[in-house]
Amino acid sequence: MSRPRPAADVDAYDLTADVIVVGLGIAGVAAALEAVEAGADTLVLEAAAAGGGTSALSGGIVYLGGGTPVQEACGFDDTAENMARFLAEACGPGVDRGKLEAFCEGSVELYHWLTDHGLEFEHTFYATTAGREPPDTSGLIYSGGEDAHPGAEVATPAPRGHHPRYPDAAGVHIMDVLLAELDRTAARVLTSTTVERLIVDGHRVVGVEARAGGKAIRAEARGGVALTAGGFVFNDDMVARHTPELLRANLRIGTDHDDGRGIRMAQAVGAATINMSAFECAVPITPPLGLMRGVIVNARGLRFVNEDAYTGRIGIELLARQDGEGYLIVDEDVYEVNLVGMQAMAVAETIEELAEEIRVPADALAATLDVYNRNASEGRDPLFHKRPEMLKPLAPPLGIIDLRVESTFYAVFTLGGLWTDADGAVLSEDGEAIAGLHAAGRTTSGIAVRGYVSGISLADGLFFGRRAGRSAAIDLAGTA
Amino acid sequence: MSRPRPAADVDAYDLTADVIVVGLGIAGVAAALEAVEAGADTLVLEAAAAGGGTSALSGGIVYLGGGTPVQEACGFDDTAENMARFLAEACGPGVDRGKLEAFCEGSVELYHWLTDHGLEFEHTFYATTAGREPPDTSGLIYSGGEDAHPGAEVATPAPRGHHPRYPDAAGVHIMDVLLAELDRTAARVLTSTTVERLIVDGHRVVGVEARAGGKAIRAEARGGVALTAGGFVFNDDMVARHTPELLRANLRIGTDHDDGRGIRMAQAVGAATINMSAFECAVPITPPLGLMRGVIVNARGLRFVNEDAYTGRIGIELLARQDGEGYLIVDEDVYEVNLVGMQAMAVAETIEELAEEIRVPADALAATLDVYNRNASEGRDPLFHKRPEMLKPLAPPLGIIDLRVESTFYAVFTLGGLWTDADGAVLSEDGEAIAGLHAAGRTTSGIAVRGYVSGISLADGLFFGRRAGRSAAIDLAGTA
Repeated sequence: MSRPRPAADVDAYDLTADVIVVGLGIAGVAAALEAVEAGADTLVLEAAAAGGGTSALSGGIVYLGGGTPVQEACGFDDTAENMARFLAEACGPGVDRGKLEAFCEGSVELYHWLTDHGLEFEHTFYATTAGREPPDTSGLIYSGGEDAHPGAEVATPAPRGHHPRYPDAAGVHIMDVLLAELDRTAARVLTSTTVERLIVDGHRVVGVEARAGGKAIRAEARGGVALTAGGFVFNDDMVARHTPELLRANLRIGTDHDDGRGIRMAQAVGAATINMSAFECAVPITPPLGLMRGVIVNARGLRFVNEDAYTGRIGIELLARQDGEGYLIVDEDVYEVNLVGMQAMAVAETIEELAEEIRVPADALAATLDVYNRNASEGRDPLFHKRPEMLKPLAPPLGIIDLRVESTFYAVFTLGGLWTDADGAVLSEDGEAIAGLHAAGRTTSGIAVRGYVSGISLADGLFFGRRAGRSAAIDLAGTA
Repeated sequence: MSRPRPAADVDAYDLTADVIVVGLGIAGVAAALEAVEAGADTLVLEAAAAGGGTSALSGGIVYLGGGTPVQEACGFDDTAENMARFLAEACGPGVDRGKLEAFCEGSVELYHWLTDHGLEFEHTFYATTAGREPPDTSGLIYSGGEDAHPGAEVATPAPRGHHPRYPDAAGVHIMDVLLAELDRTAARVLTSTTVERLIVDGHRVVGVEARAGGKAIRAEARGGVALTAGGFVFNDDMVARHTPELLRANLRIGTDHDDGRGIRMAQAVGAATINMSAFECAVPITPPLGLMRGVIVNARGLRFVNEDAYTGRIGIELLARQDGEGYLIVDEDVYEVNLVGMQAMAVAETIEELAEEIRVPADALAATLDVYNRNASEGRDPLFHKRPEMLKPLAPPLGIIDLRVESTFYAVFTLGGLWTDADGAVLSEDGEAIAGLHAAGRTTSGIAVRGYVSGISLADGLFFGRRAGRSAAIDLAGTA
């Protein structure tokens, strides 16, 4: 299916370009803009009827730092090194150090590139979102647990979630602005055009074969091909094979075109994959932040995470390590119905009743709450290091919010993909670049590996998308 | 480096065979014997100076069940379905159901194949090994926690670790017997011959290119190639990329030739990999079994596993989920120096002293021990379900055995590799078989995925090695 076609079997090409970009989400539009700006005749092929992809469905947070104008105006100190320290912990273990350093060192420049391309960011900080986009046009939020354990101990806390001036989930706005920019260039964009395989000349990728309206299209890339075709969360076979946990989640984030196509066609020409079992899982307990003052326990009645951690950290813990079983215990002070409508499944007058309700061992649950309450009354959490302002002893009656995977929102997508270098070159398992082939976005393994922060997908899609587009254009110079 | 050579670039072959087997560990010898028995002219290429590989370093347990003569003689009931239920839990999540069913259904036949090929198994059961080979010539042991939580709840407990009549670690004996069998056939074996790449004609694998004494050798496979070249635990780059946790372990199990070569050369022709982040990690606390009566806590002073679980389950938990931090707490009744010399690092008269010694929160540790002791005195472990006979309240003075990764044995190897079907065909990410290419053993992802049982590597190497050899021979019939 995804097997490459030898160039020798192609009589004539229907189209020719310097750079071919496959997929028009955030990484694709960045690759195309950069290729055009490098002087390359650029052709973009998008499977859907319009550009946007999963990026247009997102909240529109872009993870930027190291001292952006918004961070500075809002009074937050940050450096590329500080940002890298935080992300190595938050997105690891196993973060690619070379990519991470390039990403953090280039982050302020990426901010300016975005504003140069028409996006605006208010110089305002919104304090209480807990990783979700702000409910207004504010420009800056904490979006990955920077101010919570363990991030707050490895790096100076700084918010890095940049949100464009747009009064709603801003992903669609970011894509609209950048697609309009692309529209003003000479780049050709073919939509409803599904790339099916690469065309190779020996070990070099020289083009793609696509299908549009039942007709095969063969396009030659004089320079290179940039694969920016999304992840694989909507390919059930691949999910079952690589991230079987995700089959249990009730909310897969993506579009039908996140079918792993880019990964498959690259692998068919010898590309290596990496971190294919990695995924993001957000369980949106907060906002409101006040719910962080509750206690999360697993099916054994034991705590396993600081409740003020980033939603993705809690979600990955729940799905990857706790078998999708957890409960948030609250009292009358703490309880609120949250933003996605999570409500208490039961209220108990005693810990024994509570334990019976959620079928966890009563004495273990009692011990957990006893240790928690005793320390919380002293403003300490020596076990999981929740912030003092989120600590308070819980007093009966106690309510239970059901966090089990079969009961509430587990929003998931895949993080594994092609192994690329910091310039977007696609590599073999030996670490050799596959000539003519570049990739970015969720088709690749990016900055986030076994952890996640909101805004990292748009940010690394932009950053490495641009680099993939530029590298593909440089290929042209190299071959010309 | 591992890129395939097009057949068109090969003027003449130095050697020709029906089936070429790459690597002569357990999977390789099984593939070669089966290919020969199917009538194929068989050539085996081994990088080391002699066959054996990592299999010859192993304890020589072979995981067999479903009602073998040894199981029956020792009075244990087992069926293929029961064995599959157990392994799906013990080796999962994510075990390949098709492979698992074939493996379990064919297990008794594999037993007879082994005895037909010269191995002998005593019809005796050795009770107290806890997953290690018996210290004598006994034929049968529990080797994967079959009689402990959670395995004992999903399937009727039956021991399946089959150990040949040999008074020591029997891996070398198994390899000696099977290599002698191979020696009696017409198969050609070239040692000190390192295969470097595959030779391809279009999408079909038609041979291999190897190096021996500085000289290139090109060998043509009229039928197929079977890759049985081991895992990648001795390739630091691949380990850093796929299983970074293993860099912390002090005992990698394998030989220098476990360098991922088979995986790399197959991936270079479009093969998919699967479960590349998976690994086995054994922390040999037991035997003696009595140490299971202690309590294992993590760096927070919380339990996280039943202490009578299989050593590999405890090890994977420690390294993959507890950041390599754990302590076994014992009292005077429980304490013994174990088989690998683990000793108490300290003795404490009180829980406060104990907590200070291992730097865990004292009140959490006290709560953990309090809950444990209270339940243990009633013969129950509602949290982690340790067997009643391993439960006893611990009384001061308490000793601490250090289970941290930097302090004790973590014996590790990789479990990820090529994606193959139940017949040993190597597949692309689309699920298409790569013509002429087969694989087995640790070059592939086998039965064990995110968990492990002792004996599964020899067993699935044998089982799928035989299938790979047979498939490669059938390829010949297909093309002839």
